[in-house]
Amino acid sequence: MESDYGLPRDLSHLQLARSLYKPELPPCLQGTTVRVEFGDATTALDTAGANAISQSFPHTYGQPLAHFLRATSNVPDAQIISDHPAIRVGLVFCGRQSPGGHNVVWGLHEALKIHNPQSTLLGFLGGSEGLFAQRTLQITDDVLATYKNQGGYDLLGRTKDQIRSGDQVNAAMAACNTLKLDGLVIVGGVTSNTDAAYLAEKFHQSQCPTKVVGVPVTLNGDLKNQFVEANVGFDTVCKVGSQLISNLCTDAFSAEKYYYFVRLMGQKASHVALECSLQSHPNMVILAEEVVASKLTIFDITKQICDAVQARAEKEKYHGVILLPEGLIESIPEVNALLQEIHRFLRLGISVDKISSRLSPWASALFQFFPPFIREELLLNPESGESAQLSQIETEKLLAVLVEAEMSKRLKEGTYKGKKFTPICHFMGYQARGSLPSKFDCDYAYVLGHICYHMLSAGLNGYMATVTNLKESLEHWRCGAAPITAMMSVKDYGRASGSMTIGKPVIHHATVDLRGKVYELLKQNATKFLMDDVYRNPGPLQFDGPGADSRTVSLLIQDLDYMGRIKELNMYLDKVRSIVKPGCSQDILKAALSAMSSVTDILSVMSSPTNGSI
Amino acid sequence: MESDYGLPRDLSHLQLARSLYKPELPPCLQGTTVRVEFGDATTALDTAGANAISQSFPHTYGQPLAHFLRATSNVPDAQIISDHPAIRVGLVFCGRQSPGGHNVVWGLHEALKIHNPQSTLLGFLGGSEGLFAQRTLQITDDVLATYKNQGGYDLLGRTKDQIRSGDQVNAAMAACNTLKLDGLVIVGGVTSNTDAAYLAEKFHQSQCPTKVVGVPVTLNGDLKNQFVEANVGFDTVCKVGSQLISNLCTDAFSAEKYYYFVRLMGQKASHVALECSLQSHPNMVILAEEVVASKLTIFDITKQICDAVQARAEKEKYHGVILLPEGLIESIPEVNALLQEIHRFLRLGISVDKISSRLSPWASALFQFFPPFIREELLLNPESGESAQLSQIETEKLLAVLVEAEMSKRLKEGTYKGKKFTPICHFMGYQARGSLPSKFDCDYAYVLGHICYHMLSAGLNGYMATVTNLKESLEHWRCGAAPITAMMSVKDYGRASGSMTIGKPVIHHATVDLRGKVYELLKQNATKFLMDDVYRNPGPLQFDGPGADSRTVSLLIQDLDYMGRIKELNMYLDKVRSIVKPGCSQDILKAALSAMSSVTDILSVMSSPTNGSI
Repeated sequence: MESDYGLPRDLSHLQLARSLYKPELPPCLQGTTVRVEFGDATTALDTAGANAISQSFPHTYGQPLAHFLRATSNVPDAQIISDHPAIRVGLVFCGRQSPGGHNVVWGLHEALKIHNPQSTLLGFLGGSEGLFAQRTLQITDDVLATYKNQGGYDLLGRTKDQIRSGDQVNAAMAACNTLKLDGLVIVGGVTSNTDAAYLAEKFHQSQCPTKVVGVPVTLNGDLKNQFVEANVGFDTVCKVGSQLISNLCTDAFSAEKYYYFVRLMGQKASHVALECSLQSHPNMVILAEEVVASKLTIFDITKQICDAVQARAEKEKYHGVILLPEGLIESIPEVNALLQEIHRFLRLGISVDKISSRLSPWASALFQFFPPFIREELLLNPESGESAQLSQIETEKLLAVLVEAEMSKRLKEGTYKGKKFTPICHFMGYQARGSLPSKFDCDYAYVLGHICYHMLSAGLNGYMATVTNLKESLEHWRCGAAPITAMMSVKDYGRASGSMTIGKPVIHHATVDLRGKVYELLKQNATKFLMDDVYRNPGPLQFDGPGADSRTVSLLIQDLDYMGRIKELNMYLDKVRSIVKPGCSQDILKAALSAMSSVTDILSVMSSPTNGSI
Repeated sequence: MESDYGLPRDLSHLQLARSLYKPELPPCLQGTTVRVEFGDATTALDTAGANAISQSFPHTYGQPLAHFLRATSNVPDAQIISDHPAIRVGLVFCGRQSPGGHNVVWGLHEALKIHNPQSTLLGFLGGSEGLFAQRTLQITDDVLATYKNQGGYDLLGRTKDQIRSGDQVNAAMAACNTLKLDGLVIVGGVTSNTDAAYLAEKFHQSQCPTKVVGVPVTLNGDLKNQFVEANVGFDTVCKVGSQLISNLCTDAFSAEKYYYFVRLMGQKASHVALECSLQSHPNMVILAEEVVASKLTIFDITKQICDAVQARAEKEKYHGVILLPEGLIESIPEVNALLQEIHRFLRLGISVDKISSRLSPWASALFQFFPPFIREELLLNPESGESAQLSQIETEKLLAVLVEAEMSKRLKEGTYKGKKFTPICHFMGYQARGSLPSKFDCDYAYVLGHICYHMLSAGLNGYMATVTNLKESLEHWRCGAAPITAMMSVKDYGRASGSMTIGKPVIHHATVDLRGKVYELLKQNATKFLMDDVYRNPGPLQFDGPGADSRTVSLLIQDLDYMGRIKELNMYLDKVRSIVKPGCSQDILKAALSAMSSVTDILSVMSSPTNGSI
């Protein structure tokens, strides 16, 4: 199998055309010098946990933000790096394949060669296992030729998602030492970037000279925080998903007799389902975050859907489209409790056929209530020892069956008088992941690849590559890097349990913010979506012409560019300093003092730990 | 619900851009005159059945082909129609929604208005039931605005597929009489166009003045014969399907641990599965036509897949993609026999839970062998009294389960030594049907709509609109019309039974020709596809730039343009006549006589009924 990696391949006409597309670089990355400006030292997202985080990361916590600047920009403090020795860099794909991943490799390779043609990029074959086993492929222009702007991770492959255990970390360090790597680039999501931070700290402690940097590539879109506006892959996956959902909407509306239940990717967060809803306007979407917040039971959810079906039937509408994220099932409190029991027994090595008899009476009652196919799926071994195998649990089918039963009951009792309810189920889990990446993801990933070089060139360790102002066109993108530790917290406000847990500092999955603008947009339109069939079709992913440059709604309507605003704030502070110099009038000083003291008072209160959710 | 038809709607950016796209017209349809040239009288596809067909269609059998010519073309016999009274035309969507259907309405409306602004186009609301109930929507530019180049049938909706029973035919006739229609356009596939032919004959017999014409719109692509090269919708559905299959291939190749079993549309014929295979190069495809030809049992098919999995495992490959058409299950001889028994009991009104005990011993054994989910699905009521509910039968899951069991057995017995086989199942039945239509389908449907006007203007009854030379660019398309009876046969070489049956003359579903060029291309590549992972991604449907004008492989590599070649033959015959005029030399006459006698001898033998398959 291994010999298949990075082989040239036959491309379709469109694939070929895409392989010849070359993303632009934002002004700040053009040219052959690297200019980096360091900002203030960073704190952690989770102010209350800052202490714990700094203890876990004595060497890599509190590092400053880094901004990469254009060669001509007039920033006095910027450090200019004009010496570019040949360096050796390794890159590893961690976690699930996301469209655009290949372009990180390409961008990094380009940047390495621009600055020193003697530099070397090694791709680890077969993901983290390839890293541990030191299996590499030297990246060249020839190797890249048929992988530029193409989907999948098949240039290098992937395996496990983790570089975490002592053995794994040591194997990674051995690989970096043996291969004499100056840098190791980890491409992945929340887990992989957390691992990158621990690796960076450990390498520093062990005096391993390899710098470790991360790149936010995950189609779930849940690696979001003030530094990271978007993840590579999310744009593509939402566009492919929306196209299909819209096709189903059109289909439902044409045939007028089916309800489509569609399960989408999104285990820990429902960003994909939310974005697709805003693109396609299906009749209904149930986000895991809503279920957690409202503590809805499976019966509540069933009733909600039944009431919607009934309201539509009263308007002579017997079709509809309902979206669910795959993480929904785990977010339902009683199902989650049942899953926890099952997983405990599985971990104890109790065989599957014995488990149902050992469940607590309450969990057992729920288990027996479920149709056989769901029972079988709930009994599957959890993934990586934590989460259930959500891709295998047919929540859409479960809900369809429960709704069907309830509608029949209502029909019999005479409370529902419409036509028969006919559900059809779909799981859109794998059709999108391998797609040709959208122009946005191609550009974003390529630029991130370039930034990786700049980070390594500036000697950064334990940082993640960042691009901000992404909602604007590429020439306005700002490039930088943020310490990964600044994105960590020890508290988890995650939804599965609905309550807060305290653990090791990690980057947590960013869930849908129910007080945020994106969710608000959905809520404002929910009734219209439900009743009026205002279906909308964003159409298939375009590479030319109308639609080719579209962005996700999630990106467009959020208040982003945190890094840009941090810079703006610094500008204000500098201005105050330059106005209020010794020699200025008493009045000016007094005004400045009063204003600043009130600003600091307000900010102190707002950022006190007791006040702080994220 | 009804008030929702034809409403303006919110369009996405891309939908809006598409709604502003206007297809060109081929030269022969430009201008405001209609010129029609009639060819020779047609015979039937099924020469042996010609007699039976002519008896069923005394008034509409044997009509000549019609060719529509450009206003300036120099054809002496062409009839020029320059009088264009205002006419009233009705249009009805029959059968399943196919991308592009809306453009037939648009093209027809345009052509009507170009030739006489007083003409009226009525769309029947809710398909054939709307026709029977005389529910109409007057088509205007405003109504069309948000439906041009858009998918679905939601402008008018659809219901049942048939206009066949006495009551239905009478209701249709009453509608045409009451609404004073000069023409009725039936948009649909094999069944609907057969109904159109019977309706035309019946209207003529009953002196109803409405002319009935058909348009070949069916995403299955199985309305193919010497007159019809392609069906509206097939291009789009194959492109959307191929994109998703290719995404799965990339996904499989990146993750290297799953076998994807993908069921595609195609109940009576496997054209979609064949075309998608040639686009995406999955590892394996099993066509229903192959199963019929080789009389493969479910165990044969399972073994075939297992052997493939094993061969790949020996090369360390544990992933793959396998395509199946939804009609596969009915093509398996023993399953088909079982389905026939079940359907007989269902027709007798025997309740589902009693059926399994009344099956013949052999059918019962097979039934009991199947996993419970398949048993339930096999017991579903057949569609329209004929075929099983193929969209509901999870053949992909059945095969995945059987292959999994067999691989475990081989593993236990030690004949297979590889890793565990992990299947994941997908059904791509509904995601493609509602897609924005491809440029090809937009153009083709729009042109067919125009042809409908020309047909009605020429007074044709019982004809289907045809465009040939479709593999060339639009300016080379030839437009015409062929009597629907010429596409009929009484023998059915259909695959379900594997044997020939004789019935009423109808258009039969054209199945994949196992001796044809398209299938040959698949066979030539089958081993490479299976073993070498030469996956190819045609990418998402494009409307601009590279790929926007691509055609299906099925269209490109077939010998088509039958109508063009008929014209070419007539040219030869005319030439012979003009050379061999009274007064020519004895030698020339002798040479002509000898050559013509041998040609006619050969053709007589070749076209004798005993020799004749289609």
